[in-house]
Amino acid sequence: MNVDQLIDGILEQDTRAIARGISIIENRSPQAETILRRIYARTGRARIVGVTGAPGSGKSTLVDRLIAQYRQADLRVAVLAIDPSSPFTGGAILGDRIRMQAHGVDPGTYIRSMATRGHLGGLARAAVDALSILDAAGFQIILVETVGVGQDEVEVAKTADITMVVLVPGMGDDIQTMKAGLMEISDLFVINKADRDGVPRVERELQALLSLTDRSDDWTPAIVKTIALESVGLEDLVSAIDQFFAFMKTSPRRTERQRERTAARLRELLQERLLKTALQVGNAEGEFDALVKRVSAKELDPYTAIEMLMPKLERRPIEDGVGKF
Amino acid sequence: MNVDQLIDGILEQDTRAIARGISIIENRSPQAETILRRIYARTGRARIVGVTGAPGSGKSTLVDRLIAQYRQADLRVAVLAIDPSSPFTGGAILGDRIRMQAHGVDPGTYIRSMATRGHLGGLARAAVDALSILDAAGFQIILVETVGVGQDEVEVAKTADITMVVLVPGMGDDIQTMKAGLMEISDLFVINKADRDGVPRVERELQALLSLTDRSDDWTPAIVKTIALESVGLEDLVSAIDQFFAFMKTSPRRTERQRERTAARLRELLQERLLKTALQVGNAEGEFDALVKRVSAKELDPYTAIEMLMPKLERRPIEDGVGKF
Repeated sequence: MNVDQLIDGILEQDTRAIARGISIIENRSPQAETILRRIYARTGRARIVGVTGAPGSGKSTLVDRLIAQYRQADLRVAVLAIDPSSPFTGGAILGDRIRMQAHGVDPGTYIRSMATRGHLGGLARAAVDALSILDAAGFQIILVETVGVGQDEVEVAKTADITMVVLVPGMGDDIQTMKAGLMEISDLFVINKADRDGVPRVERELQALLSLTDRSDDWTPAIVKTIALESVGLEDLVSAIDQFFAFMKTSPRRTERQRERTAARLRELLQERLLKTALQVGNAEGEFDALVKRVSAKELDPYTAIEMLMPKLERRPIEDGVGKF
Repeated sequence: MNVDQLIDGILEQDTRAIARGISIIENRSPQAETILRRIYARTGRARIVGVTGAPGSGKSTLVDRLIAQYRQADLRVAVLAIDPSSPFTGGAILGDRIRMQAHGVDPGTYIRSMATRGHLGGLARAAVDALSILDAAGFQIILVETVGVGQDEVEVAKTADITMVVLVPGMGDDIQTMKAGLMEISDLFVINKADRDGVPRVERELQALLSLTDRSDDWTPAIVKTIALESVGLEDLVSAIDQFFAFMKTSPRRTERQRERTAARLRELLQERLLKTALQVGNAEGEFDALVKRVSAKELDPYTAIEMLMPKLERRPIEDGVGKF
């Protein structure tokens, strides 16, 4: 399959092409840029739903039930599971296999895990690019499921159109902190395992925190109770998600959100490109390594090192023709 | 207090100066760079111990008991709690106050929370800089406590000399995933609440995962059982930490680790600086915003936008004198 065939395959919703495309992005292969460039105009149609929450909150089950719900409504659904585990343990892959047994035969469903592989910030970027592929492949709903409650969640949430936080009653001491951290980025709260004790308390705490939260739009996050294992509350959840999208349609915040996302993305790409170009133009890779050694040995502080490097990187004008490639 | 006094205060272990210094870093105030530059040569002596684990694992209690343990050995201890909560809810500040009641009167102890405030990657950077301040202030042990299991943890772990993961028996479905994600970055495992059922099972699972993990050094992560609430197992824990540092002293991996950290840091600083300079030299802030709008409207893909912007940024040589500052 060459790049043209691959891109056609993605746009024609071919599962093999989609899988291949995402792998290319994950591995940062050279074709990644070509693919992303060419599919870009076809993106922006999917509803991207971020699902986050602590381990043990039942996120995966909830996502599985949401798939079923959306499939009943005849919508094509993709799941991108963001997994901080490393690939060699096979965690992600194993998890996928188990979940694909339930939904995998259905061509209207696609499930995929992505692992961090230790790149700083690399996951969020790869996830955004994978979302573009799923979006271009015509999935109407893309569920982005994350594990954990760290910066990852904040980053992934920024790429989603709506962010849903899954809580469970009686989670212990850290729940206060967790909720606080997620308040600003959450558009919808799910109290899962709602047959357990302590639901009114979680609800009360959430309401209290919500009343303190100053959102930049006028959306009031809904609180939905579910028992995912028994498929209870799923219709309410889907309808709460629909309400948010209906609200966003008329909100100026939507364009703003989209623009912030794009700006962050462009800034990142530009930074990488500038660094690469600058080190090449200045022929300064060796110099950079030498400075790393000196800073590492505490002979030099990082800021002075940058001062020393910058003139080298700037002095040669582009007319040399080395800076463009 | 001017910058000179502040720096002197930090080096003389004055609590007010330390607190002020960290706030300056957190707020990205202009003096931050001056402070970091001038204290840099005084860093590198502290043992930085990363403590991570899921909500409810009892990390905070464990950290409190570790403080007591180290204080008994007459070592100065600082705690940097990395907290994904946003500052307006007061979560971090409240938590600090409660914990300072136990240790706050003791000048050999310093506890501080840092919140993400939604910066992408900003937390990890601010945390590294705060660690430099605590290190320069002569704390012999710095405990870095993180909440959650995402990219944050991986980033913070990279700044620590040793990373300890706190687990509890019977944590539910996601424990497998969590452990997998943390295996590569973990130097030590703590099974806390070890009076609960299920300890042998967690231990067995850990051993199995460890046997699959291919570390770049020859360290075999220890597994220590504790009941933090009852101060059980703390001596074993401290001794396991000591053993790791003894091992690292003779390991080439130590210098390598230090160098990787420095390289990542320099790359980051350089990227930021290059972007700022490039946009100013090219007088291209407006152009950048215009491109953001077009990409946002799907008229243009991000990669083509970068292609369009790059020539503007590169063409003017430094001789104009605009590019340096």
